[in-house]
Amino acid sequence: MSGYNVAIVGATGAVGARMIKMVEQTSLPVNSVKLLASSRSAGKQLQYNGQPMTVEETVPESFEGIDLALFSAGGSVSKKFAPEAVKRGAVVVDNTSAFRMEPDIPLVVPEVNPEALKNHHGIVANPNCSTIQMVVALEPIRKAFGLKRVIVSTYQAVSGAGNRALKELRDETQAYLDGKEMDAHILPTAGDKKHYPIAFNALPQIDVFEEDGYTHEEWKMIHETKKIMLNDMDSKDIKVTATCVRIPVPVAHSESIYFEVEDPKATVKGIQDVIAKAPGLVLQDDPDHQIYPQAHNAEGSRDTFVGRIRPDQETPQAFQMWDVSDNMLKGAAWNSVQIAETMHKMGLLHMQ
Amino acid sequence: MSGYNVAIVGATGAVGARMIKMVEQTSLPVNSVKLLASSRSAGKQLQYNGQPMTVEETVPESFEGIDLALFSAGGSVSKKFAPEAVKRGAVVVDNTSAFRMEPDIPLVVPEVNPEALKNHHGIVANPNCSTIQMVVALEPIRKAFGLKRVIVSTYQAVSGAGNRALKELRDETQAYLDGKEMDAHILPTAGDKKHYPIAFNALPQIDVFEEDGYTHEEWKMIHETKKIMLNDMDSKDIKVTATCVRIPVPVAHSESIYFEVEDPKATVKGIQDVIAKAPGLVLQDDPDHQIYPQAHNAEGSRDTFVGRIRPDQETPQAFQMWDVSDNMLKGAAWNSVQIAETMHKMGLLHMQ
Repeated sequence: MSGYNVAIVGATGAVGARMIKMVEQTSLPVNSVKLLASSRSAGKQLQYNGQPMTVEETVPESFEGIDLALFSAGGSVSKKFAPEAVKRGAVVVDNTSAFRMEPDIPLVVPEVNPEALKNHHGIVANPNCSTIQMVVALEPIRKAFGLKRVIVSTYQAVSGAGNRALKELRDETQAYLDGKEMDAHILPTAGDKKHYPIAFNALPQIDVFEEDGYTHEEWKMIHETKKIMLNDMDSKDIKVTATCVRIPVPVAHSESIYFEVEDPKATVKGIQDVIAKAPGLVLQDDPDHQIYPQAHNAEGSRDTFVGRIRPDQETPQAFQMWDVSDNMLKGAAWNSVQIAETMHKMGLLHMQ
Repeated sequence: MSGYNVAIVGATGAVGARMIKMVEQTSLPVNSVKLLASSRSAGKQLQYNGQPMTVEETVPESFEGIDLALFSAGGSVSKKFAPEAVKRGAVVVDNTSAFRMEPDIPLVVPEVNPEALKNHHGIVANPNCSTIQMVVALEPIRKAFGLKRVIVSTYQAVSGAGNRALKELRDETQAYLDGKEMDAHILPTAGDKKHYPIAFNALPQIDVFEEDGYTHEEWKMIHETKKIMLNDMDSKDIKVTATCVRIPVPVAHSESIYFEVEDPKATVKGIQDVIAKAPGLVLQDDPDHQIYPQAHNAEGSRDTFVGRIRPDQETPQAFQMWDVSDNMLKGAAWNSVQIAETMHKMGLLHMQ
């Protein structure tokens, strides 16, 4: 059967496991799959479509004959190997922050800016998880009513920091229940100096701090949103600000999104209607029956769930909503494979 | 020794336990303490200052000779017995929502509006926990720079829903770790129809839904803030809106607060300075050293911790901050006893 030769880089990680699943389920024609990781993880056995498969060490030659390379092994791995993959004829969909802010590298959420894919030069960047689920909900609102301003506070899952952070959450949680000390070694972010417990806590730090007191995660939400929606990471056409917080949830980010629209005729009903019809979104908004999105229910779904849409009672054209999605799927693995499927449909993906 | 005769109504509850502790530690002269609860809890043994004390059933006659009655046993108990206590000469500090919106009943945070105590007619209302820790931080900002607008998203602890909810969090958490089903019977709110797990989840419902898609908790944050800061629950002088969310934290609420000030000269440094000097507040704001407030560290303290103060990079006179406090102490028991201490200093509390 003719199809694409696919490489998954970072196959042993938390996102890698979902990448494998999404490739198993993809509508793309797939000829072969290769699982790549660091030398430390090489030799490990994983499954693809029920068959055992050995993880190989990533080297430049790994990408010989590869048509599509899905990267999710950290920014430094992408910086080193993505150009090697492109040199050998592959299209790279990169789930790290390595290339997201490069002006000539498309940053794509297929429901929002698929046209940007046409300008790719081999690498397409997958946005940050917290950004994706927000813009997929804001885009139909922007199209219908115009968008002036966004203020978001996030409730982010621990899986965003990887498998070791997930284990830390479990270990700390059990220690707390047993009345023991909690040992923190990874969160809020492995690369920073201090570590704090996440179990039964809320940590207002995701990634390292940057200028003006914002974390890199907040910076990403602000600038990626502008690049995806307005094709300019510093655009002033929509004001965006963010507070990013980690909470003790394993999978699925929740977001409290405050937004102001241009159209004075915008109503809750009108916003609900565009959300209900938009691709990738599920409206769960029935307060009378206590229906609203929950992290607990979103795990495992490719959709983004939106509810609690309501007006600011004192500011015209201002609304709030609650937005929940599986950060490992729409926030990472699914959006990456969806980018590849979209490129295939647009004739931008080629078999060598 | 001469001193006040104090009754604690709801002594067996989560807040009641803290009320006992706060009365043990109070600077008020205390002559006697009486622990009251429902008939179901009557006869239970608790400790006061290391001495065993039997809980009595609350009846109108319980308040004979009582100077100060601290109520925290639910709104219906307050509605029934607070007038009985007042009739018998007691001052009531009520920690339920029973009287908060009565125009002639003061709603008081001692750092913010102690003068309102002068207008009491026997009952003083203690505000909702999530409101108290927000206004105690906003008031010094309002005084220094003027305050135009507040947009808050909360990360609220489970203890706010009582001891049974705390047990539910523990039981669900252990079940999840053991790979078992989680049984939800109480949260999001005992009085509503459906119940959802809080362990490893985020629930965007606290209290029941009201008009416009807002929950009662959100309604309380909006209108109590206006009543405390502006003495008018419907004032338009400060715009306030809120999203209230329960997260799997046992004690201490966190809040992501966005606010706009009137003074164009307001700076992060200026705001940090007024927070650092204001009563009841501790500034924890040093991103370079990963210093910011955390629920895990706030438990057991009477203070409210504020950090992550930073400017909205695109909207002038707009800032964000992260505000954390023990919801059972400043949010409930301590604020109630602090009200009594303040009344004592103002000559508004009397021994019979």
